[in-house]
Amino acid sequence: MSRLSHLDAQGRASMVDVSAKGETARSATARGKVVLRPDILGDIAAGQMPKGDVLTTARLAGIMAAKRTDSLIPLCHGLPLSHVAVDFSLDHDTGTITIEATAKTTATTGVEMEALTAVSVAALTIYDMAKAADKGIVIADIRLIAKSGGKSGDWSAA
Amino acid sequence: MSRLSHLDAQGRASMVDVSAKGETARSATARGKVVLRPDILGDIAAGQMPKGDVLTTARLAGIMAAKRTDSLIPLCHGLPLSHVAVDFSLDHDTGTITIEATAKTTATTGVEMEALTAVSVAALTIYDMAKAADKGIVIADIRLIAKSGGKSGDWSAA
Amino acid sequence: MSRLSHLDAQGRASMVDVSAKGETARSATARGKVVLRPDILGDIAAGQMPKGDVLTTARLAGIMAAKRTDSLIPLCHGLPLSHVAVDFSLDHDTGTITIEATAKTTATTGVEMEALTAVSVAALTIYDMAKAADKGIVIADIRLIAKSGGKSGDWSAA
Amino acid sequence: MSRLSHLDAQGRASMVDVSAKGETARSATARGKVVLRPDILGDIAAGQMPKGDVLTTARLAGIMAAKRTDSLIPLCHGLPLSHVAVDFSLDHDTGTITIEATAKTTATTGVEMEALTAVSVAALTIYDMAKAADKGIVIADIRLIAKSGGKSGDWSAA
Amino acid sequence: MSRLSHLDAQGRASMVDVSAKGETARSATARGKVVLRPDILGDIAAGQMPKGDVLTTARLAGIMAAKRTDSLIPLCHGLPLSHVAVDFSLDHDTGTITIEATAKTTATTGVEMEALTAVSVAALTIYDMAKAADKGIVIADIRLIAKSGGKSGDWSAA
Amino acid sequence: MSRLSHLDAQGRASMVDVSAKGETARSATARGKVVLRPDILGDIAAGQMPKGDVLTTARLAGIMAAKRTDSLIPLCHGLPLSHVAVDFSLDHDTGTITIEATAKTTATTGVEMEALTAVSVAALTIYDMAKAADKGIVIADIRLIAKSGGKSGDWSAA
Repeated sequence: MSRLSHLDAQGRASMVDVSAKGETARSATARGKVVLRPDILGDIAAGQMPKGDVLTTARLAGIMAAKRTDSLIPLCHGLPLSHVAVDFSLDHDTGTITIEATAKTTATTGVEMEALTAVSVAALTIYDMAKAADKGIVIADIRLIAKSGGKSGDWSAA
Repeated sequence: MSRLSHLDAQGRASMVDVSAKGETARSATARGKVVLRPDILGDIAAGQMPKGDVLTTARLAGIMAAKRTDSLIPLCHGLPLSHVAVDFSLDHDTGTITIEATAKTTATTGVEMEALTAVSVAALTIYDMAKAADKGIVIADIRLIAKSGGKSGDWSAA
Repeated sequence: MSRLSHLDAQGRASMVDVSAKGETARSATARGKVVLRPDILGDIAAGQMPKGDVLTTARLAGIMAAKRTDSLIPLCHGLPLSHVAVDFSLDHDTGTITIEATAKTTATTGVEMEALTAVSVAALTIYDMAKAADKGIVIADIRLIAKSGGKSGDWSAA
Repeated sequence: MSRLSHLDAQGRASMVDVSAKGETARSATARGKVVLRPDILGDIAAGQMPKGDVLTTARLAGIMAAKRTDSLIPLCHGLPLSHVAVDFSLDHDTGTITIEATAKTTATTGVEMEALTAVSVAALTIYDMAKAADKGIVIADIRLIAKSGGKSGDWSAA
Repeated sequence: MSRLSHLDAQGRASMVDVSAKGETARSATARGKVVLRPDILGDIAAGQMPKGDVLTTARLAGIMAAKRTDSLIPLCHGLPLSHVAVDFSLDHDTGTITIEATAKTTATTGVEMEALTAVSVAALTIYDMAKAADKGIVIADIRLIAKSGGKSGDWSAA
Repeated sequence: MSRLSHLDAQGRASMVDVSAKGETARSATARGKVVLRPDILGDIAAGQMPKGDVLTTARLAGIMAAKRTDSLIPLCHGLPLSHVAVDFSLDHDTGTITIEATAKTTATTGVEMEALTAVSVAALTIYDMAKAADKGIVIADIRLIAKSGGKSGDWSAA
């Protein structure tokens, strides 16, 4: 007789079934930081980095990555994004670039991962363009700030 | 007469020319953290998260993302990766997962971004699989730990 | 006079027009097999393969590939997948891993290719992780098992 | 006190917010030309190019590229394409291949870029397959021919 | 005191380190079958399928997929392919299309997965283009036929 | 007896075998034009387009597309690009943006398609960002300007 073992017990990954959920308008905003030497931040703000305009490049990289979130995060659903924006604020004293990304969709599942992915890839792009000048760059404090839509309703970080 | 303006002044981005650099064996190690509620970390360690095995999924997502670094980071060169590994250590008291990724290549340019991308996407994957249980997850402290190879030689964080 | 030849006769490929079809909930299940040496199958089941956890890796590879079906199969429409699952059953006597994948969507066109792609890439991943131990692995018998939704209604293999 | 500068002034790129727009059926047709030596065009028409069937390859490349438009054009929204077709007409006297592509969707934003991308990548593919025989190939006159759907209504080139 | 558990024990997946291996010229050939109704095979051979030229489309899909093998198979290394070819032979009596793919590279690791991926995606493409006419299509018997290069030397299936 | 027909006659596409060719340093430069209303060109030059900085976005899109050329053009070999640059010159009288892209590699095959793809996708990106203001934009005159390296040696357009 054949020994047959089924492995579909708990512990197996799947892309969870959202087919019974209704579509709603959804939005999510995430934030993160890149901390580098203040003089490097000055060069970035002045557009004087040898690899080019750091913040514009990071913004576009974040937007493009948001559109590919479901191909990066294994169990994420693909979503038709209706809006993505990535913005920066600079604190010259501490050498901190704060990145904020917002993503929107009308879908059966939330858009948090798209906003977080935009922040992460924008941060990595800043790192890439500044790393020749500063090996000690740190990407810090990436988190969800607010979300709206879906069954669980609106939420924002305290 | 035609007014003709050339825009190729400073500030323009380009993928820098590495064609005159020699190939050397290179390695880079990066590290980062995901901080979540300690009870959620317990469920992750016990393999009891509803979306599946979190750390194995995150490891594979990180490895696969490392191979696509040059398509995420606009000015990164494509590299033939000879090795990628992603590992985790868990601190149950503080609810902290430390992610460490190492990438290797033999190429004319360094492999830091690949290691940092692996850490970032592994962190995002953990976030995705745990977010239904904890909206306050934070991805923290992503940085380069060590690199070897290339003209600038070996380096490790203090 | 100019000789002008139009080539848009029969024989030309196109992505067929589904714009007049209504969206319905759709599901498809596909199945396939990987046949390898029974002792290798034992090592896989015991989690003792040197490249890592074979079935978890194959499951994730299958899920991720399902999401990219339209970029692999030239004339496939892109679909918003609402669910993908990949499971395995092992027959230790014959050295056979049976892979079963289910995909769901709400769309104007069917989701068979997504289920079949998930099975195929899961099978290739098993092959990749076991090939150092067994050059004679065979991927066999990939077929559609059942589908539901759409104008042609429900169908299942005899 | 910390100097804090916000960079989100004009000049920043974003994927514009279309979440308040209604979905409508949309169509766009684009056209472009590849001009090469007439004898090479004869070989293409006769299926005698060493790299294979040029027009079939170009057609498929154009269709596949249309499906990836949003990953190529940074601020393009992802769209579920319901139809893509690419066709060719040949003028043997002038060595001109005219490429025409039509894309359709039901979405909140237009499908012009998908049609233009299909034409562009089909043209590049013809170039690639013929370049060993003719270094002077020119891709010319890529433009929108007609569009329908959306708030701005139907439009066609004069 | 902090409880700290390291998870990098056996069972973890990694992209194995090939940095110490020398580059050699490598080749691999794989084969597989698609079995469908003989009358459908007749229509395919005659170029009379409504979706277009099935075998040309399948050949190109297989070639393009081979180039993306490392993004589909999680632990596969990226390889610079120097050659990919996909060919077909038809057995009209049994309704069988035999697909054979060959891939070549000069690299530190083998090219079997690229050849197997080309066969698999070519088979899925045939399935896609014929499935409206025949729901009972089977993809069968995908296996490695021969490989050369590398430390283990030449090998061919008995 | 089984009727067996081989289809691998001429007319079949393949990625040509370059495994016997030696690696050499190669470079290619391509050029193309986007022609739009002069007042729109003025707005682009002044950074006053509502979708953001057009030329910086187009430059990055071109660079990123160059890195993906082998996934867009079916029979193109993958190449490790050592340099990509995209630049613009503006003729305000005629409303013409001239795009020039240079790509470099050390490889067994040429890098023309990468330079041409960079120009084409940069042009499409300009089109996308300006199309709301001008439906009559034309992408024109994309061609190779110069190449160096390889068996055929240096070449430049007359």
